[in-house]
Amino acid sequence: MTSPSYDDQNIFAKILRGELPSEKVYEDENTIVIMDIMPRADGHVLVLPKNGSRNIMDIEEADLTAAIKTTQKMARVLKKAFNADGITIHQFNETAGGQMVFHTHFHVIPRTQGITLRPHTGEMEDSDKLKANANKIRAALEA
Amino acid sequence: MTSPSYDDQNIFAKILRGELPSEKVYEDENTIVIMDIMPRADGHVLVLPKNGSRNIMDIEEADLTAAIKTTQKMARVLKKAFNADGITIHQFNETAGGQMVFHTHFHVIPRTQGITLRPHTGEMEDSDKLKANANKIRAALEA
Repeated sequence: MTSPSYDDQNIFAKILRGELPSEKVYEDENTIVIMDIMPRADGHVLVLPKNGSRNIMDIEEADLTAAIKTTQKMARVLKKAFNADGITIHQFNETAGGQMVFHTHFHVIPRTQGITLRPHTGEMEDSDKLKANANKIRAALEA
Repeated sequence: MTSPSYDDQNIFAKILRGELPSEKVYEDENTIVIMDIMPRADGHVLVLPKNGSRNIMDIEEADLTAAIKTTQKMARVLKKAFNADGITIHQFNETAGGQMVFHTHFHVIPRTQGITLRPHTGEMEDSDKLKANANKIRAALEA
């Protein structure tokens, strides 16, 4: 199900259809989790509902609750995988709200005491490092 | 139901028990919504599950899904009440993750294009202004 304001040519829709690559660390019936390629801290992931919606304004309740459950699962797993002191969750809606890709998503970011979030530089993370961090998450999910 | 790491003397627990005042704008069976007294933008509210939990690490699934549904409701209402261009949602866990009160909560913040969030100054909002903004939200909820 998609909303009238949803453009299925956004990059997350393409990732969900397998038309673009991603470093996927988790998948269930209703959601996937991928590495953010411009992480604000090591282990920064994105939770995406599989169904198309633009953001929290139009998402169906079942997709929203599926996304928050996966977000909780990832918060717990990231804490272990990165020995994190805390977890920051961001969910942005429309450009003014911080949204850059118009498919609903939750940012889940492991935090270390005293370390601020890296700014959005627009620079992509080294792919080996991204893969290594993805593998830490996969290992923690299997533990 | 409370988790072992939950301290029921936190200020949100006291607000929920009516031991401290708050500018409450919404209540349902499982959640309440209050004005943030140190708003990062006009209309900044906090969604609190009624049951005690420290944060996303220990919250029960039913409380978490209730909280995200109320968060969605507030996102829609704040957009109308403040003619917002976007909505930013923050959910912080542990001090390193940005959490200051250890009762699970979601920040829902109306955003205006080109206006950055106000920093955390620790200064309390003028109570008349807070009340006026609360009344805008109540009116939008009733509309």
